[in-house]
Amino acid sequence: MKVALLQLNPVVGDVSGNIKKIVEAVKKAAKDGAQLCVTPELSVCGYPPRDLLLREDFIDGCQNSLKELAAQLKDLPPTLVGVPIHNPDSVGKPVFNAAALLADGVYSIVAHKTLLPTYDVFDENRYFEQGKLRGLVTINGRKVGVTICEDIWNDKSYWKKRRHYTQDPLAGLVEDGAEMIINLSASPFTLGKQFVREEMLSFMVRHYEFPFLYVNQIGGNDDLIFAGKSLAYAADGTLIGKGKSFEEDVLLVDIEEKTGRVEQDDASDEAQAWNALVLGTRDYVRKCGFKKVVLGLSGGVDSALTAAVAAEALGSENVIGVLMPSPYSSQGSIDDSLDLAKRLGIHTETIEIEPMLSAFLGSLNPVFDGVDTDVTEENLQARIRGNLLMAMSNKFGALLLTTGNKSELAVGYCTIYGDMAGGLAVIADVPKTLVWNVCRWVNKNYGEKIPVEIIEKAPSAELRPDQKDSDSLPEYEELDAILRKYIDERLSKEAIISQGHAREDVERVLWLLKISEFKRRQAAPGLRITDRAFGTGWRMPVASRVTLP
Amino acid sequence: MKVALLQLNPVVGDVSGNIKKIVEAVKKAAKDGAQLCVTPELSVCGYPPRDLLLREDFIDGCQNSLKELAAQLKDLPPTLVGVPIHNPDSVGKPVFNAAALLADGVYSIVAHKTLLPTYDVFDENRYFEQGKLRGLVTINGRKVGVTICEDIWNDKSYWKKRRHYTQDPLAGLVEDGAEMIINLSASPFTLGKQFVREEMLSFMVRHYEFPFLYVNQIGGNDDLIFAGKSLAYAADGTLIGKGKSFEEDVLLVDIEEKTGRVEQDDASDEAQAWNALVLGTRDYVRKCGFKKVVLGLSGGVDSALTAAVAAEALGSENVIGVLMPSPYSSQGSIDDSLDLAKRLGIHTETIEIEPMLSAFLGSLNPVFDGVDTDVTEENLQARIRGNLLMAMSNKFGALLLTTGNKSELAVGYCTIYGDMAGGLAVIADVPKTLVWNVCRWVNKNYGEKIPVEIIEKAPSAELRPDQKDSDSLPEYEELDAILRKYIDERLSKEAIISQGHAREDVERVLWLLKISEFKRRQAAPGLRITDRAFGTGWRMPVASRVTLP
Repeated sequence: MKVALLQLNPVVGDVSGNIKKIVEAVKKAAKDGAQLCVTPELSVCGYPPRDLLLREDFIDGCQNSLKELAAQLKDLPPTLVGVPIHNPDSVGKPVFNAAALLADGVYSIVAHKTLLPTYDVFDENRYFEQGKLRGLVTINGRKVGVTICEDIWNDKSYWKKRRHYTQDPLAGLVEDGAEMIINLSASPFTLGKQFVREEMLSFMVRHYEFPFLYVNQIGGNDDLIFAGKSLAYAADGTLIGKGKSFEEDVLLVDIEEKTGRVEQDDASDEAQAWNALVLGTRDYVRKCGFKKVVLGLSGGVDSALTAAVAAEALGSENVIGVLMPSPYSSQGSIDDSLDLAKRLGIHTETIEIEPMLSAFLGSLNPVFDGVDTDVTEENLQARIRGNLLMAMSNKFGALLLTTGNKSELAVGYCTIYGDMAGGLAVIADVPKTLVWNVCRWVNKNYGEKIPVEIIEKAPSAELRPDQKDSDSLPEYEELDAILRKYIDERLSKEAIISQGHAREDVERVLWLLKISEFKRRQAAPGLRITDRAFGTGWRMPVASRVTLP
Repeated sequence: MKVALLQLNPVVGDVSGNIKKIVEAVKKAAKDGAQLCVTPELSVCGYPPRDLLLREDFIDGCQNSLKELAAQLKDLPPTLVGVPIHNPDSVGKPVFNAAALLADGVYSIVAHKTLLPTYDVFDENRYFEQGKLRGLVTINGRKVGVTICEDIWNDKSYWKKRRHYTQDPLAGLVEDGAEMIINLSASPFTLGKQFVREEMLSFMVRHYEFPFLYVNQIGGNDDLIFAGKSLAYAADGTLIGKGKSFEEDVLLVDIEEKTGRVEQDDASDEAQAWNALVLGTRDYVRKCGFKKVVLGLSGGVDSALTAAVAAEALGSENVIGVLMPSPYSSQGSIDDSLDLAKRLGIHTETIEIEPMLSAFLGSLNPVFDGVDTDVTEENLQARIRGNLLMAMSNKFGALLLTTGNKSELAVGYCTIYGDMAGGLAVIADVPKTLVWNVCRWVNKNYGEKIPVEIIEKAPSAELRPDQKDSDSLPEYEELDAILRKYIDERLSKEAIISQGHAREDVERVLWLLKISEFKRRQAAPGLRITDRAFGTGWRMPVASRVTLP
């Protein structure tokens, strides 16, 4: 059987646009001889639709679109799509996350998602009732088990800990006689995830000895990035298909002939992070209806990487870099920023902030009279810059990108309404040490886009004379290690200290992390590339303090 | 049996502080002759602990605190507390939301929460495994069914629709022979909720004919406000106890003697909203470690109400009002603000924004040369004010309150990083029409705190000459009605139009609501007083568009 894996990039909510995209892809696949087409999870409305799912009119619209879609696909191969549908039962959540089979001009619902991820960035129990319909259908004379994303992620023999669910829908389908498994997915990208995914899938194929097709969404939807990389395995475990990375794709495989196309890509963290950020930025900007972006260039490595990502994502001609030197800015920073802009081919504007700063200090002088200079005056500068950038954003219809990295956002080394101002936080989930490495990778692979001086200099916010980040923070290697152990590995304070980190550093970092919660609550959406990002999957109380007896 | 309902105000995460509070309340109740004490849900760690629950060290701390608490309560009456505990099973979520009975110096876990709310602001499926332990315990020779919050909210005979769960734990306990029911709750306040709660409880008491004790948390925790109003019913349905509203309380009832104390309060929306906002503001500010607040006074009704709430919550001496007139501000606005400050007894500062505005316009002139004046220049003013207020906040250690109402936040009639800047959005869930009514209620009940001119004048942002809100928005009565139907009642656009609202108005309002999503994503936490607030319970995609075929 020839199956086409339609690796599509939907716009969330845009049902009309998404079904048009599906029809086009099916037509293309039909030309190539596909006998069955498969789309990702919730392909009709895009993933994740979030609270749109709470609206009855939205579910009506999704469900009604199936009729139109079925009519349009009438003379084309049978196609599996993902769609939210009403739960006809009056007890339980009102919606199912379903798969529909469109064939011969009609549609039928063939599967409900059973395992509903409700952790990290996922809220599926908020919307969906647990599946009641086990997805066994006969297609081309073959018993096909249709599963949706998470349904295949609770295999008893593969996982040592099964922390989310007790059921294993896959085992159920096998019991029922499934001869092959299809999985409609919208599984977000994070660094290292694809390795686990391939290992798990190939384990299950070897275990059950059946063909396995996994179709993943691609594209950026708010903070989430989907990488594609759909997979097809023959019954003997051969990998016969792997879709493109971070690109739409129509991937045709022949299950019996064991033919297909296996795309390769650079699996390094640096390459994966770069490609994810480029896609995430392009999609966020365009899906929000913008063409252009604006950002501040400080002469530091964070704004340099953000500018490079933006130029790659949107074209240099659509990126405006703004230099806003203060009396504390070094000439080096200005020169480096201009050099960067030249290498990237982006337009720049330069606005000295001194006139605004003088006006603020003058007006505040009567109120602040006799009180010492402190962080207030540093924040004033950052917020003048935020205001200038937002003015440019408003005036030119260019979305403002923020440039802060994950390490800074963790410890609050950033100014709310200042450098945190913007519509998208491009590198908010990239730790500082990875920022440097990605810059080096970019220079190695794209020619020297980022001046070496920017990568090699000691980081400084330049908000007071001779300021260095290391004046008030541990070195970034140390900071990132402590943060990773506390945030990603969830170790206790004492466990981290026992691994050889200075108590003083650990206590300071955890304290800074805690008191910065209010800033993160108001941060712009940040592109997620790790398993534990600040953002929709980070839900901490603000008005709290932790004391344990 | 004499039971004390300990209506406590915990700090989230502050286990040491919370158990101290519990011990003090139990001692007080013991003196009054209590034979059993009951605290609210998760009283050991406060509700909602949110992602603190994902940390093993945090759960360890909570569980360990039970030993210490049991030791401290050794010679005092048996006490039921709420606590998160580890799930010993390796399959399923790692934590239970539990109730522990502390008696004779030891503790035992007596109940797990079965119904885990996962909708609106609630995320309990994210953290907790569904309860396995049905809470039937014998206390003073009586079989007591112990339930936790939501467990009592799925009664088959009371609810017509049961949209969240299929089980009914209460019915199970009755089958098992429960002779009375105790419910440990942390049930957030919203307007009108207490009426439903009392109706449902009294229905169940009459239905099952047993005594019923409901103990609710009080206090503000981030966006959520808990009103207390704990309830006690005798077996014959008599209401024998009702706790204080928006205050801590130790409420003693005698179930057989049918004695207790029934507190009364003004149940009007205006009174309830006012009391909730005062408590929510006081707790947020203090639990964040602040004493003082600062806010901008525009001469409008929103900043007036916010200032009045702040003065009531924190004392006039802890509120700084800042007037920041521009060339477009009317003399009336300045006079009204000064009059308001005098009536409230709060300190004011006045800073003209013209010098900063001139500096910005001068510096931006070369960049903006030849481009028309537009909303950019209005936003500049709002953001200069935001920067000034944040500078005051930083310099004086005063938390900045934002003053926008729900109607504005809905349609984006507010400037991100401008008037939206601040740590707490006091009236973000109060529709404009209710803002006016609460002001009138305040004046009626507290003397004329808010100048009548402020309440009666036509609303204006004063960001350009002779601007009125009604230039670009429908009248607020109309706007609030459309928003309520779309947001709270979740009617479709066509259904709203068919109820007599102009298509043009409805389409414009829904379009504004959609395009303002990015602003709300970065809004300060707002005190929730309605069933559908923007904030933690509003999870909309940003980079999306809704098209339904």
